[in-house]
Amino acid sequence: MSASESVTPADVRFGPDGLIPAVVVDAGTRDVLMLAYMNRESLERSLDTGRTVFWSRSRGELWEKGATSGHVQHIVGMRIDCDEDALVIDVEQTGAACHTGERSCFHRPLTSGA
Amino acid sequence: MSASESVTPADVRFGPDGLIPAVVVDAGTRDVLMLAYMNRESLERSLDTGRTVFWSRSRGELWEKGATSGHVQHIVGMRIDCDEDALVIDVEQTGAACHTGERSCFHRPLTSGA
Repeated sequence: MSASESVTPADVRFGPDGLIPAVVVDAGTRDVLMLAYMNRESLERSLDTGRTVFWSRSRGELWEKGATSGHVQHIVGMRIDCDEDALVIDVEQTGAACHTGERSCFHRPLTSGA
Repeated sequence: MSASESVTPADVRFGPDGLIPAVVVDAGTRDVLMLAYMNRESLERSLDTGRTVFWSRSRGELWEKGATSGHVQHIVGMRIDCDEDALVIDVEQTGAACHTGERSCFHRPLTSGA
């Protein structure tokens, strides 16, 4: 498949749990902001509304990012990987992506501890 | 937790399947190259060797990235998210990350198809 060929939601391969991981990237800084999960409904709502909607695995419900915090993510574009089981979503992030107040959820290094 | 506090493998929260998703980012260009999964052994081997080792869900075995293709990933650093269940790995990528020969696995847009 060429780099310019686009994929539609019908082609997305959700996992056995009905979910696909979505890597959210700041379209300006290119920072990886967070990783969350989408089911088919949340993916379609994200495409329809232009804002990210995820599936909360802990709460077992749809999760409109920023609905309470105001820290919404406006979708600039979506990309899918070669085997259609992971997404990258480029966004304009309002405020902080992380509930801790940090801009990115990935704000701590992981080291061997040795 | 402060941004400077580091996390060790003992703190990592693997899923019910024993795996954690790892987002691999090109340390130079900042492109998201791929998403793959690690179990505890592959994480420890990655930290020990300085090269990425994943768990192949399709083959059910450890997968040394680049072992056959030569397209190894030298680890520059690892980051973990706020709830310790997702990783970002910054790498120097030799050759292409994607088996298609594209630099990144995320080389196709996902659109609504409307």
